[in-house]
Formats: sequence, C-alpha cells, structure tokens
Amino acid sequence: MIESSAGTNIMPERFTGTLRAASEPGWSDAVGHRFVKELFTGAIPDAVMARYLIQDHRFLDSFLTLLGAALASADTFEARLRFGRFIGMVSGEENTYFLRAFEALGVMEDRRAADPDTLTTTGFKAIMREAAETRSYAAALSVLVVAEWLYLDWASRAPQPLPDNFVHAEWIMLHGNPDFRGFVDFLRAELDRVGPAQADLCHDFFRRAVALELSFFEAAYADRT
Amino acid sequence: MIESSAGTNIMPERFTGTLRAASEPGWSDAVGHRFVKELFTGAIPDAVMARYLIQDHRFLDSFLTLLGAALASADTFEARLRFGRFIGMVSGEENTYFLRAFEALGVMEDRRAADPDTLTTTGFKAIMREAAETRSYAAALSVLVVAEWLYLDWASRAPQPLPDNFVHAEWIMLHGNPDFRGFVDFLRAELDRVGPAQADLCHDFFRRAVALELSFFEAAYADRT
Repeated sequence: MIESSAGTNIMPERFTGTLRAASEPGWSDAVGHRFVKELFTGAIPDAVMARYLIQDHRFLDSFLTLLGAALASADTFEARLRFGRFIGMVSGEENTYFLRAFEALGVMEDRRAADPDTLTTTGFKAIMREAAETRSYAAALSVLVVAEWLYLDWASRAPQPLPDNFVHAEWIMLHGNPDFRGFVDFLRAELDRVGPAQADLCHDFFRRAVALELSFFEAAYADRT
Repeated sequence: MIESSAGTNIMPERFTGTLRAASEPGWSDAVGHRFVKELFTGAIPDAVMARYLIQDHRFLDSFLTLLGAALASADTFEARLRFGRFIGMVSGEENTYFLRAFEALGVMEDRRAADPDTLTTTGFKAIMREAAETRSYAAALSVLVVAEWLYLDWASRAPQPLPDNFVHAEWIMLHGNPDFRGFVDFLRAELDRVGPAQADLCHDFFRRAVALELSFFEAAYADRT
C-alpha cells in the first residue's frame, strides 16, 4: 500500500517498501517527531540542538566506516563511484556544517570531547560496526537506507520558507536536496536488488535501525544531569 | 640517505623512506620510465595512452575498494575524513578525466569492455583485494603509499609548460597538485605511525606494489596481437 499511487496498486511492492511498512509505527513516529516539527519552525532550543549535533557528529564517524565498508563490498563499479562521491560530500560539506554549527552554538572542543555517548549513540555505533563486519552488502545497505531515507522523508516535508537560523535551515537542506534524493533512490534500488536473497538479515537490521533513529531524536530532549 | 638533506643525516630515517629504499631500483626505474618521459613532452602515441588508460580505469575500480577498506580500518576520525575527501575526488574529478580522455582518444565503450586485463592489471587487482582483505590498516596503507607517492614523485618532476594535449597535461596535474601532495604526506605519516609494528607485512606489500607499478608502464608499450 505504501508504494501504491492514485488508488491503484498494480505495481509489485518494492522490497524497501516492505521493510519500511514492517518498521511501523517506529518509522512514522520518527519522521513526525517533535524534534522535526521544532526544526521546521526553528524552535529547537540551542541546548537541545547542541546535544543532538554532538551525538550526530559521533554518529558520522561510524557512518563513514559503514559507507567505506559498503563501497568495499559493492558489486559494481558504478555503485562504488556513487558511494565514493557521497563519501566525499559527507567528509567535506557535511562535516564543515557541523564545525560551523558548533561554533554558532558555542560548543567548544572540550565539551564535544567530554560529553559521553548516549545509549542510543552507543547502539548506533554498535549496529554500524556490526553491519560493516558482516561484509554483507545487503546488511550495510539496510542500515544506510534507514539512516538516509528516513531523513529524506522528514526533510521532504519541510514547509517553505526554511528557518532563518542556518543551524536549522542547513540541516534540513542537507537532507532534502535533489542530490540527496538521488542518493537515497540509488540506495533503495540497490537494496531492492540484493536484499531479497537475505531478507531476514535485512529485516533485522532495518527494524533495529529505525528504533535507534526514534531514540536518537528522543535523546536530544533527555536532560542528563 | 634518501631522507637526509644538505649533506646531514641527523633526522631518523622515516619508515616509508626505508620502504622506498628497499624497493630500489624498481622505484627509480618506474619514476624515470619512458612512459613518464614521453608524457612530459606529450609524445606518447595515442594507442599507448589508450591502452594505458583503459587498464588504469580498471585499476581505479579496485583502488576505490582499497580506499574504502582503508577508510573502514583507519583508527581515527580525522583519518576517515581525509580518506573520505580523497575518495570523493577520485570518484568525481578523476573518473570524469577518464571519460573525457576516452572520448578524445576515440575509445568507445565496447573497446573498453572488450580489452582483456593485462597480467599487471590482474596482479594489481589481486594485491589490492589481498590488502583490503587483511583488514590491516598498515597493509592497505602500504599499497596506497606506493600507488600515490610514486605518482607524486614523477609528476613533481614535470617541466613547465605542460603539454598542450589535456589527456597528457591533466594526467600530470592530477598527481602533481598541492592537494595531492597533501594527501601523500598524510598517507606517509599514517604508515610511518602504524607500519613499524607490522614491518614485514609492509615491506612485502610495498615491494610487490612497486614491481607492479613498473610493469604497468611497461605493459602500455607491449603490443598484444
């Protein structure tokens, strides 16, 4: 049903559509989370945004490892080039966004180093390492598809105009632009292609990754003392 | 001696300097190869350049796999970012150079697909896969340092002005520019840091990779019938 359009359902369900449907209601809870709603209006308190970005910057480190593993395990040259260009973007523009945002939020290097990983960050690092270590392209893709498609899904719903504060606006644009959409399309097509042969493995990684995404938004609002 | 300067030798030899010295005379034979000399003057016959680039484009595929493995096995976030940006450049600008060069040389898709791998290309693919599969950061670095430092070494010797033909000139510039030099400096510093603990492994991969680089230039002149 998720993949049907205009009341007809003649297309066979895509594998990634099945995975997403099976992850409900977690997927929709994440995409419609308070964090997303407040991001769209620029209303996220600085303390929450700082907590979120510190953890997400650590996520980025393990995420790069997983992308490297996906590139190394991909089975076509075209896929490797596609991962390669995306890895370049993440290591360049996206990392630079974090550094500018930390400066704007007054988050210093020592705070970034001192803040402990939240339980969710620890869980994300573990699942990304686990997926990388399977050396299964399908496993790596299952986690990557969640991390990217779920972000595309909420970012695509952002109303115009975006908030004035670049910390909010650029975080939306990084996940709602046409290049990013193209990358998500590529990831889904790859998982549609190689996933069905390892369906149980994919379902397991996908479901756990969606639960972590939801927790990740929750954790930004949890005041630790 | 290789790392000494102005007649003094008070700095301890760098590990990568030791590796390079142990790979002689192969290293110098490659850096001073006829291919390099003819590249500098723009004198490489189109048939030779086409043969060389077809094989090198296949090298790029395995090379990306090795870079992805190095990113995944690197032990610091800063190193992952550095690999990530370089992977982006290789997947973008460098791959685009190949496509433009193939067009200029009249090398069509079917010729690129039909030409068999040379023995050297097969050897390169094997050593890169082998290095990636060790999951040893030092092993991956040993092959990467050869592939990049040896190219920096010859490209740094290119006289000005560069040849008019972009197929020759850009191939030199891709390996002689300051960004590329910075990446080689990074690779060497990483191997200087992690290599000594696995010295035998590094020597073995380094020596074999240098021999393959020399064969790679040779193969471009070998007319297969």
